[in-house]
Amino acid sequence: MPEREPSITGYLTLGLLAGRDWSAYQLAEQLGRGVSELWPSADRGRYAVLNRLHSAGFVETRQEHTGKRARTIYSITPEGREALAAWLRTPVRPPTVEFEGMVRVLLSDQGSLDDLRATLARTREQALANREMFARYAAFISETGGTFPERKHLFALANTFMIGHYEHVISWTEWAEQQIADWPDTVAPARTHGGQVHDMLAPGREALAGDQATDW
Amino acid sequence: MPEREPSITGYLTLGLLAGRDWSAYQLAEQLGRGVSELWPSADRGRYAVLNRLHSAGFVETRQEHTGKRARTIYSITPEGREALAAWLRTPVRPPTVEFEGMVRVLLSDQGSLDDLRATLARTREQALANREMFARYAAFISETGGTFPERKHLFALANTFMIGHYEHVISWTEWAEQQIADWPDTVAPARTHGGQVHDMLAPGREALAGDQATDW
Repeated sequence: MPEREPSITGYLTLGLLAGRDWSAYQLAEQLGRGVSELWPSADRGRYAVLNRLHSAGFVETRQEHTGKRARTIYSITPEGREALAAWLRTPVRPPTVEFEGMVRVLLSDQGSLDDLRATLARTREQALANREMFARYAAFISETGGTFPERKHLFALANTFMIGHYEHVISWTEWAEQQIADWPDTVAPARTHGGQVHDMLAPGREALAGDQATDW
Repeated sequence: MPEREPSITGYLTLGLLAGRDWSAYQLAEQLGRGVSELWPSADRGRYAVLNRLHSAGFVETRQEHTGKRARTIYSITPEGREALAAWLRTPVRPPTVEFEGMVRVLLSDQGSLDDLRATLARTREQALANREMFARYAAFISETGGTFPERKHLFALANTFMIGHYEHVISWTEWAEQQIADWPDTVAPARTHGGQVHDMLAPGREALAGDQATDW
């Protein structure tokens, strides 16, 4: 019996091994690439997780020799497959966003308008770069089937989420840059721009009205 | 001199203290409310952070007595204000999403179509509930100025980001539910639905075309 449930990084590792056997290095490479956009901590725990999965009986190892070099190859056990399938049947936790830029926005009355502008500009640039990375990946899957052709239908679902996510970040930064364009500083608008603040909150108020309309 | 830089939770705490003095309990209450949607780990570190800020010289304390009860009140020092302002001048790190549901989507060939449907349905319900929470907050700020009236212009910027974020999650789940509606299972579509997979990746390909058009 496993001492405890695998982490999400553990399930990601089992999911990779469900398709084929891999070495520790190959697994770590897969967990560091693209996956960090969906599960950032996978990048940190990618080696330690193999020992935990092994002692839980979810993976087994064998030695492969290429000339003088030996390397450990991991494969999934029937218990590992069952643990992965059992996890997929449990309720999912909601996504969380870790957004330092938005923390800075909330506290930007303690800095200058230029600081706020720089935070918005950099957030936009980062989102443009990330959108391009996923856009290139969409083209790569379209042309070749991608790194996991047997899962390309699932990668297509996820890719379109990420493209939309970065597009939201980009359009929000552009909107926010327009909103602050005529602010004299980062403090006064709470008093001087009451009408604008009211207009800025329209999407939230409309979402509430929409929810209530649905309830009736 | 501080032994090390405050964490984001530390800066959040300094940002709260920049407006007024608070007790440890009041600070923890503020860090647990709404902030966890932008910086999830604030919820875990909210008491320990005060000791670190105190030993760094960024906050100072005094005792207040109400009848027999004494409580510690925290206030920000000039060094704390400078540390906060200095941080706001540094480059921001990009937002990260921690999205267990998307990990499940990628691995859903190891489970049933019903598991995938349940993950999408639950992700949608959670996003609807979170959107409603931020929508109520938008109405609350519109009507009263909110918990921090002197920062309502900044909360309006952040609120509109969060509303758009949950709307993206909601519309993506609805789109994904349509995409999988006629799948026979979670494995076959990689072979049987090649045209659909190609169509699903259109937003990514279009983003790439748009980027390249901008480069020319």
